[in-house]
Amino acid sequence: MSGAPLPSPGARLARLRAQRPLVQSIANFVSMDAAANALLALGASPAMVHAKEEAGDFARIAAALVVNIGTLSPPWVEGMEAATQAAGAAGKPWALDPVGVGATAYRNATCLALLARKPTLIRGNASEILALARLTGATSGAAGSGGPKGVDSADSTAAAEEAARALAKVTGAVVAATGEYDVVADATRMTRVHGGDAMMTRVTALGCALSGVCGAFLAAGDDAFDATVAALAFYKLAGQRAGLQAHGPGSFRVAFMDALAALAPQDEDALGIER
Amino acid sequence: MSGAPLPSPGARLARLRAQRPLVQSIANFVSMDAAANALLALGASPAMVHAKEEAGDFARIAAALVVNIGTLSPPWVEGMEAATQAAGAAGKPWALDPVGVGATAYRNATCLALLARKPTLIRGNASEILALARLTGATSGAAGSGGPKGVDSADSTAAAEEAARALAKVTGAVVAATGEYDVVADATRMTRVHGGDAMMTRVTALGCALSGVCGAFLAAGDDAFDATVAALAFYKLAGQRAGLQAHGPGSFRVAFMDALAALAPQDEDALGIER
Amino acid sequence: MSGAPLPSPGARLARLRAQRPLVQSIANFVSMDAAANALLALGASPAMVHAKEEAGDFARIAAALVVNIGTLSPPWVEGMEAATQAAGAAGKPWALDPVGVGATAYRNATCLALLARKPTLIRGNASEILALARLTGATSGAAGSGGPKGVDSADSTAAAEEAARALAKVTGAVVAATGEYDVVADATRMTRVHGGDAMMTRVTALGCALSGVCGAFLAAGDDAFDATVAALAFYKLAGQRAGLQAHGPGSFRVAFMDALAALAPQDEDALGIER
Repeated sequence: MSGAPLPSPGARLARLRAQRPLVQSIANFVSMDAAANALLALGASPAMVHAKEEAGDFARIAAALVVNIGTLSPPWVEGMEAATQAAGAAGKPWALDPVGVGATAYRNATCLALLARKPTLIRGNASEILALARLTGATSGAAGSGGPKGVDSADSTAAAEEAARALAKVTGAVVAATGEYDVVADATRMTRVHGGDAMMTRVTALGCALSGVCGAFLAAGDDAFDATVAALAFYKLAGQRAGLQAHGPGSFRVAFMDALAALAPQDEDALGIER
Repeated sequence: MSGAPLPSPGARLARLRAQRPLVQSIANFVSMDAAANALLALGASPAMVHAKEEAGDFARIAAALVVNIGTLSPPWVEGMEAATQAAGAAGKPWALDPVGVGATAYRNATCLALLARKPTLIRGNASEILALARLTGATSGAAGSGGPKGVDSADSTAAAEEAARALAKVTGAVVAATGEYDVVADATRMTRVHGGDAMMTRVTALGCALSGVCGAFLAAGDDAFDATVAALAFYKLAGQRAGLQAHGPGSFRVAFMDALAALAPQDEDALGIER
Repeated sequence: MSGAPLPSPGARLARLRAQRPLVQSIANFVSMDAAANALLALGASPAMVHAKEEAGDFARIAAALVVNIGTLSPPWVEGMEAATQAAGAAGKPWALDPVGVGATAYRNATCLALLARKPTLIRGNASEILALARLTGATSGAAGSGGPKGVDSADSTAAAEEAARALAKVTGAVVAATGEYDVVADATRMTRVHGGDAMMTRVTALGCALSGVCGAFLAAGDDAFDATVAALAFYKLAGQRAGLQAHGPGSFRVAFMDALAALAPQDEDALGIER
């Protein structure tokens, strides 16, 4: 970080492939298969390790950690606490995926406890980012639809832009609200990422898998904002290409995994990053 | 329900797509991916929420609940109790999928406790419906193979028809025994549904996913018998179409998800509902 | 086993298809879908049953048991103990898949406790077999990379051959180290199996699913060494054929499930078993 130029998105992908980072994932039961496959397809090494008996030990050997509250329960929350504490102590980047926050008091309380551990990145859909911004007091209660519809977003990315900025300021994290387009914010910067395919909302766990992919890009440990933008942009590009192959959500998922594996550094020219 | 004509299966599908019901699923670890993808492909919004700390809260905001005991354990059973109690109190329809009942005493005891909560629908394979009918005393011990072979059926649908009728009378639920053909019964009615493809038994979790799809059709809250028949018939039609595309169980699953998404209300003319 | 000739690999596959063995799997959350689908595609009947309240009861009705520690936690370890104890008492074959052993103290302690229950087969990647051999004192601490990189192997099969032999002698189990080629050892024999496709390491859970497939071949209860060799060789053949169809890891998984279902006894002439 000593004044050297930051790597381009393509250089970040090339580095990821060369380093094959070990990404610890405390994922949900629905998304583990898709998240592990997305990380393997991209070129990272996923490991799903959640029990409090070992989650902290593992966070010390992993290059990055991703915590997803999709199917949370008290033993899993204890594992999340152990892992995020160890990651924080060891200076490892970690990402929070606040699935369905706003839907129940239990999800809200868990997210607030995890935010106190200072995630490097918060990635959610628009409704989740809006809910988290309200919950932390970053924005007033008026914005958004008043809570996610279950775990699918009821809000547009545009409606969540201000919440993403505000949440980034309050938490010190990079915040990404992903959807029909993505917005990435930190305390001082904001970028939009375009691309993808409408079919991405018809396949389960692609949002969760995206959080995993962000973790793999964060693993290098340099600028988290740029790493997140690169992750989202390559993911959207893979989605866009998969959409050209697919006949429905079943074949989309297959084509999407193939497209993740086929991404190449020189594809950076095709990324939909708004300048 | 004031004397208005009941919607046709196609009208039910069109309404489901328009309403995009939030279906809470307490599913098993094997089937969550397939069940969530089937619901998304069809046009519903799945949410897998099981912890007793939030399962009841969530049941109050969901349009329907599906409980599947495939990989049960005490904490999950507590969540099932919280969710079914809340669903009952709120008048929300809920479906029970008694995976592997008959195989162990623990499954039997759990099913009996859940039946006391008055499910709207019980959907299982023939061996499961036979086991449940014996367990509740709806039929004598003589019928059927004497228990499922693990979680796959050892009995034909034909062998389970009387058990389905008897179980429906004893429980007050709609009962569906699904397999090479499906039978749906309530206290006074019975219908058979034909179609599908033999490959459906070679892909895991398609039975569990079907229970989820039934939940989505039940969400509208009107006649549960007709809703179940519509769900089963559209599912079989998607299976039949997927069979024409598939080269084996891997490609069948992909084609099946595509076929669920491609179902259209006007396909009701192709449904295999026995009149 | 009274002097009758041992069945060939093809005869073992034919018997498996005819018997459709019930394989109890205490699998991990990532691999259950893939493992269940692989077993169904091959022609076995999988059942994922893990809770201590029923895991022992179920082991008594299953034909074989497979224990995989991928996403272990104390309640699951209790279920593994109940199931392996019951399998041992009933003389049922069982396989241990020591996912990620060497990565944390908790995994090491769990594996040592399970080894004391005398598995019929231990199947892992090269790094796992090396770690287990060190852990049991079968080999000195010098061999191998010093531990797996998470759950992916950091060692070649060649580096694990001696550890596999030594571990087999110490434990009395058949030991299989699988990777770019596979090695199978018991106290007196060793065989290598060739074939497969490099893509197999880019799809999650194919190692775990392979342990399940080994369990299905072990279910017949005769020579465990030959049963394991047959399982690995057919699996590699399916991988090789899938590789000819696939465009990436997404389509590879689909083609692989199709290829498992399409395996036929007469394919034994194409198996890569080193004589």
